[in-house]
Amino acid sequence: MQFSDIIMKRYATKKFDGKPVPDKVVHEILEIVRFAPSALNLQPWKIRVVTDMKLKADLKPAAFGQEQITTCSHLLVFCADPDYDSLIRRLGALLEKSNVPGETRSMILHMAQEFAGRMSPEQKLAWSTAQTYLALGNALNGAKSLGIDSCPMGGFDPAEFSRILKIPKPLVPVMLCPLGYGADTPMPKVRFAKEDIIF
Amino acid sequence: MQFSDIIMKRYATKKFDGKPVPDKVVHEILEIVRFAPSALNLQPWKIRVVTDMKLKADLKPAAFGQEQITTCSHLLVFCADPDYDSLIRRLGALLEKSNVPGETRSMILHMAQEFAGRMSPEQKLAWSTAQTYLALGNALNGAKSLGIDSCPMGGFDPAEFSRILKIPKPLVPVMLCPLGYGADTPMPKVRFAKEDIIF
Repeated sequence: MQFSDIIMKRYATKKFDGKPVPDKVVHEILEIVRFAPSALNLQPWKIRVVTDMKLKADLKPAAFGQEQITTCSHLLVFCADPDYDSLIRRLGALLEKSNVPGETRSMILHMAQEFAGRMSPEQKLAWSTAQTYLALGNALNGAKSLGIDSCPMGGFDPAEFSRILKIPKPLVPVMLCPLGYGADTPMPKVRFAKEDIIF
Repeated sequence: MQFSDIIMKRYATKKFDGKPVPDKVVHEILEIVRFAPSALNLQPWKIRVVTDMKLKADLKPAAFGQEQITTCSHLLVFCADPDYDSLIRRLGALLEKSNVPGETRSMILHMAQEFAGRMSPEQKLAWSTAQTYLALGNALNGAKSLGIDSCPMGGFDPAEFSRILKIPKPLVPVMLCPLGYGADTPMPKVRFAKEDIIF
């Protein structure tokens, strides 16, 4: 499928049919997510994958009772990671393991430290959240490319999700992405005209 | 090209060869951007497309002299739009024009008003910025799907970009996406291991 077709066929699925998505396919989607771009390659996100029915039922009220939570196969909970000290340390280890030359490595880590050092805690979380949307976009399009439906969901209570899923601090759930097979009819795709957004 | 190949072949291009990307291809990329998802379909973004060489040269110092600015064909300046009153009004007009039934329309607009009403000006900008990354992701992957290289760039001075490009308030430039043909060698794509980000 052409990427432009993926874009036009992807839609925010309101209800899934409950059929499980094969693990192999979920793995492929997660690989597409894993290779998303991020500022300075800091990858400030983590993803909790929920398949347990009891857990999904517990989460549903914390997402305004939306049906996607319990009818999907896999619920991806995208968490922003605002712990830049840890991210920079992990990036350093990754670059070393990947045989990136010492000089390049130092330059990248120095830039990352300068960059993180300028941000307040609130800015760190906002920055990590924005980056997480790049990973989320890959999940949505990646799923459709493999015949799987999804829905970007921001309407939920992050504190309740953290409590129920025992999400360790300082991770913050910022978006949900249920995966499955749509059991609804897509609404027509409407967008602002090109001349309204290109200026 | 499979979407998973697009993901693996896309890279942050550090230098372009200056060859112009055909207008038809840029149009296709912008259509892929235009159909990106966003919370409540509010599409809180606008994109300035810069091709003028003089303007690109003026912008370069405001992007730390990075070569992508002047060697690319088209420079997309992604701006976050935090004006929710206007966005909701425009969404209402779009839904009406698209023959969305009155009841559904009222429900969507009411949700959007409630949602926007809860946010401070800073939260509105942060929210619009995060949404804009979904559009940016489509630009990066959409470009590669059409054989075009790109680079997500956050390292620039938004105030200087606004001044030089006469970006009207309250739009805020949040990310750059130069488009063109790469004249550099991609670095190996390194990422955290799956077990480090899936938990």
